[in-house]
Amino acid sequence: MSEIATPSRRQLLTLIGRMGGAAAMYQAMTALGHAAETQFDGPPVLSGAKPGASVVVLGAGLAGMVAAYELEKAGYAVKILEFQDRPGGRNYSLRGGDTFTESDGTVQKVQFAPGNYINPGPWRIPHHHKCVLHYCRQFGVALEPFIQLNHNGFIHASDAFGGKPVRYKEAAVDFKGHTSELLAKALNSGSLDQSVTGEDKERLLEALRGWGVLDDKMAYTSSVRVSSQRGYDRAPGGGVDGAPTPSQIASLSDVLAPQVWTAMSFYFNYVMQTTMFQPVGGMDMIGKAFASRVGKSITYNAKVTKVAQNGKGVTVSYKDVPSGKTSSVSADWCVCTIPLSIISQVEMQVSPKMAAALKAVPYSGHIKMGMEFKRRFWEEDDNIYGGHSFTDQAIGQLSYPNDRMFSQGPAVLLGAFTSGAGAFELAGMTPQERIEAALTQGEIFHPQYRKEFLNGVSVPWTRVPWILGCVSHWSEEGRAEHYQDLVAIDGRIAMAGEHASYYGGWMEGSMLSGLDAISRIHKRSLEA
Amino acid sequence: MSEIATPSRRQLLTLIGRMGGAAAMYQAMTALGHAAETQFDGPPVLSGAKPGASVVVLGAGLAGMVAAYELEKAGYAVKILEFQDRPGGRNYSLRGGDTFTESDGTVQKVQFAPGNYINPGPWRIPHHHKCVLHYCRQFGVALEPFIQLNHNGFIHASDAFGGKPVRYKEAAVDFKGHTSELLAKALNSGSLDQSVTGEDKERLLEALRGWGVLDDKMAYTSSVRVSSQRGYDRAPGGGVDGAPTPSQIASLSDVLAPQVWTAMSFYFNYVMQTTMFQPVGGMDMIGKAFASRVGKSITYNAKVTKVAQNGKGVTVSYKDVPSGKTSSVSADWCVCTIPLSIISQVEMQVSPKMAAALKAVPYSGHIKMGMEFKRRFWEEDDNIYGGHSFTDQAIGQLSYPNDRMFSQGPAVLLGAFTSGAGAFELAGMTPQERIEAALTQGEIFHPQYRKEFLNGVSVPWTRVPWILGCVSHWSEEGRAEHYQDLVAIDGRIAMAGEHASYYGGWMEGSMLSGLDAISRIHKRSLEA
Repeated sequence: MSEIATPSRRQLLTLIGRMGGAAAMYQAMTALGHAAETQFDGPPVLSGAKPGASVVVLGAGLAGMVAAYELEKAGYAVKILEFQDRPGGRNYSLRGGDTFTESDGTVQKVQFAPGNYINPGPWRIPHHHKCVLHYCRQFGVALEPFIQLNHNGFIHASDAFGGKPVRYKEAAVDFKGHTSELLAKALNSGSLDQSVTGEDKERLLEALRGWGVLDDKMAYTSSVRVSSQRGYDRAPGGGVDGAPTPSQIASLSDVLAPQVWTAMSFYFNYVMQTTMFQPVGGMDMIGKAFASRVGKSITYNAKVTKVAQNGKGVTVSYKDVPSGKTSSVSADWCVCTIPLSIISQVEMQVSPKMAAALKAVPYSGHIKMGMEFKRRFWEEDDNIYGGHSFTDQAIGQLSYPNDRMFSQGPAVLLGAFTSGAGAFELAGMTPQERIEAALTQGEIFHPQYRKEFLNGVSVPWTRVPWILGCVSHWSEEGRAEHYQDLVAIDGRIAMAGEHASYYGGWMEGSMLSGLDAISRIHKRSLEA
Repeated sequence: MSEIATPSRRQLLTLIGRMGGAAAMYQAMTALGHAAETQFDGPPVLSGAKPGASVVVLGAGLAGMVAAYELEKAGYAVKILEFQDRPGGRNYSLRGGDTFTESDGTVQKVQFAPGNYINPGPWRIPHHHKCVLHYCRQFGVALEPFIQLNHNGFIHASDAFGGKPVRYKEAAVDFKGHTSELLAKALNSGSLDQSVTGEDKERLLEALRGWGVLDDKMAYTSSVRVSSQRGYDRAPGGGVDGAPTPSQIASLSDVLAPQVWTAMSFYFNYVMQTTMFQPVGGMDMIGKAFASRVGKSITYNAKVTKVAQNGKGVTVSYKDVPSGKTSSVSADWCVCTIPLSIISQVEMQVSPKMAAALKAVPYSGHIKMGMEFKRRFWEEDDNIYGGHSFTDQAIGQLSYPNDRMFSQGPAVLLGAFTSGAGAFELAGMTPQERIEAALTQGEIFHPQYRKEFLNGVSVPWTRVPWILGCVSHWSEEGRAEHYQDLVAIDGRIAMAGEHASYYGGWMEGSMLSGLDAISRIHKRSLEA
């Protein structure tokens, strides 16, 4: 990149550097303000907890467990009630031997080979989700890169490129090439002279020539130079026949398929940007790490039936699921992390405002499918290592595994990940029909698909009995009306979970909301 | 992504699928031709080698060793002469305890902590370099992802953004926003009506609105929505204060700094696209894997002084460096992989055409610096995990380590990687002056730099005695005039190495050229 520099610029900078020192200059410049990466700046300091103060936490997902962990560290007596027979909530992984029972009783038994898994819930951690990363570091949860953008993944739009999948690099390079050509044409026609200064116009033309890989006439055309971005018909090689041959660019019309720019935009989402991570061995390593610290406070198989409170504390009634036996637990305070789709159906002694908030948030209906194949043909045959292929078919996308790349033997890819119409279509099928649909649709990308297939599992979140949906989906209006009512401490009760955050669907939102809830409860407790 | 699909499109596709099956449809479509990823489709089949046929290979870099490995497998008697006391050539890593001696005798002793290293030569493997990956798979060289694009790395242009580094995501999102706004404006003014059909115009406007994150008036303005790509002033969080606050966009003029679009373009280079890899533990794991297979055929410390040939074979004279003792080795054929910068100075009995070719190729003067710091402040303080920060200062860029992320203790980053003026400026300094310059320039990105610094090493390739340059740099004219003369078998001698390929500077080019050379020698040998 350094070739861009002109000596005079460097000299200027050197001069500035000499006058004050680079660090001083940087400090002065950052005084203008630098974007904050996260709201997390370390776990809350809960000092001076009253002896004997107690908190009951509902739900042993990440919000509940991080709350319990920090409360116990601060000296609170904590009890956690969990409906399931395991910790983690949506933070979990399915492996060979596991079963998954849908709300109508349909049972799927996972048949993956040892070591293989699928994360039906959260599956990737952005580099700026410092709260999640903090606890991973602290608990020694090993992380590995989650490949997000893969230029060699596919984009498939049924009404573009003749219905044929194209590589991301081809579509993205052609999109920027064609749009650069058009903008250069407009600039040269003078039609933007009112919008751009003369100097910026020249600089922008130069940028478009480079960025768009335009030719001498500022046109986007097939060439070896363009192929050095979008890929070649025959790649460069060695020796006598080493010369590459160029590929043919796609038309403007083809690259205007919404699948192209939505895929390109996807990777620009703040929460989707590289570098991302996943725990080695499955996302549930995080939940398990918390459970190994707060597990002795968890009562499993506890179905909450009523949450009552008065000025002095909270009493939670629950039923032991296998035995049907009812019990109750009392505490000074309650942190409730049960998903709104469930808790809104439970008798809760809260204010009308909070009661309204509990019912105000719809949940998304994502579906995920884990498909096991005999070998990593996407790596071996197609040079795809991690990342995604997008399609406008019901399955939405394929995502390739980021663990144990280059290894031999069966491997699991994500054969569907979608919400909206596609998810409802798949959720309405039997597990076997879903597999059949995923195979038919996946073959668009990988002709080897059906031949290499071994087995699969589908998790339609609308049919997961303990949540009946995937993640909270606040509308702008709903949030304006109900969010503060939801998160405000109601008497002795505070809500937490991804639904009580601005990071819906992310573990970071869950955990930050848990920490925020206990910080306020702690403060209130000291005042009480 | 699936939300984009309209049911009718999906229905159409389903219909097409039913009529012929998805795989059949895909096959039909790919008949149009699909970009080839590589020229490599497996190692060459060298069957029927003549008993006793022999080859002398000059240079134990990757080109030489892959040639020797396949020749020996085919039954040839192979001898390798290597100038250095180790295998690998430019495929090597520097670790604590290693020394590096420059051509003027300056010695640097590497002081890195155990486990830390720098790859002065090749350091990343594209997913489509199938020849390199083939041998890594075959030899069990463990690979890990090399993070290339990191949206959270910095871009620094001394004449833009007030001289302050900005995050890649900020600059890239603002660039696409501003250019999308301008193109939308031109489209709406009708100035491109001759270039775009009415339907495409509507689709393009829709694409620009989404891709550029434009507002209702098709303008690019600061907002929470725009911040959901470029980052927030205050990121979303949980609980009561969870609402994010937007960041302020940069001006069009700032994002037109060439550093912005050259950085964006960089990641679109075919050879720079994700997914990329590096060997776990250092790039020299590849060279070592080859050496463990062909090592017994290597004579180290052998300085080639003359290459003679006649109609029957080749005789290579060489000097044992420590003792000064001269020897010679004879063989039926010779594969010469010595860099052109060196071999062009050796007495070679070749045709005038090849002799001219040997002198026709200049070498680039890259410099790399490995800097060890007390801790990974780029991860811990700045949320940067792998990837690059670019600057127009002499150091060119910083690259953050991809190994052992999240670990404690000293770590090494690449503190300079540049060619051209910046490289010559740094190469002209003493090692200590280079460190000082790298610290001053690196502080622009990381105010912690000087405080956390431990030690560093610099490798200016123009001063590496055994090559006097980094990689071959063919001009278009030079290649047209000399390339085929260089790679053609001259009597009994064939050239190989990255300079004998269209992948200059890449291990893939080296190895493909080595395989191509031995394939042709084998064929010629059978004809002889």
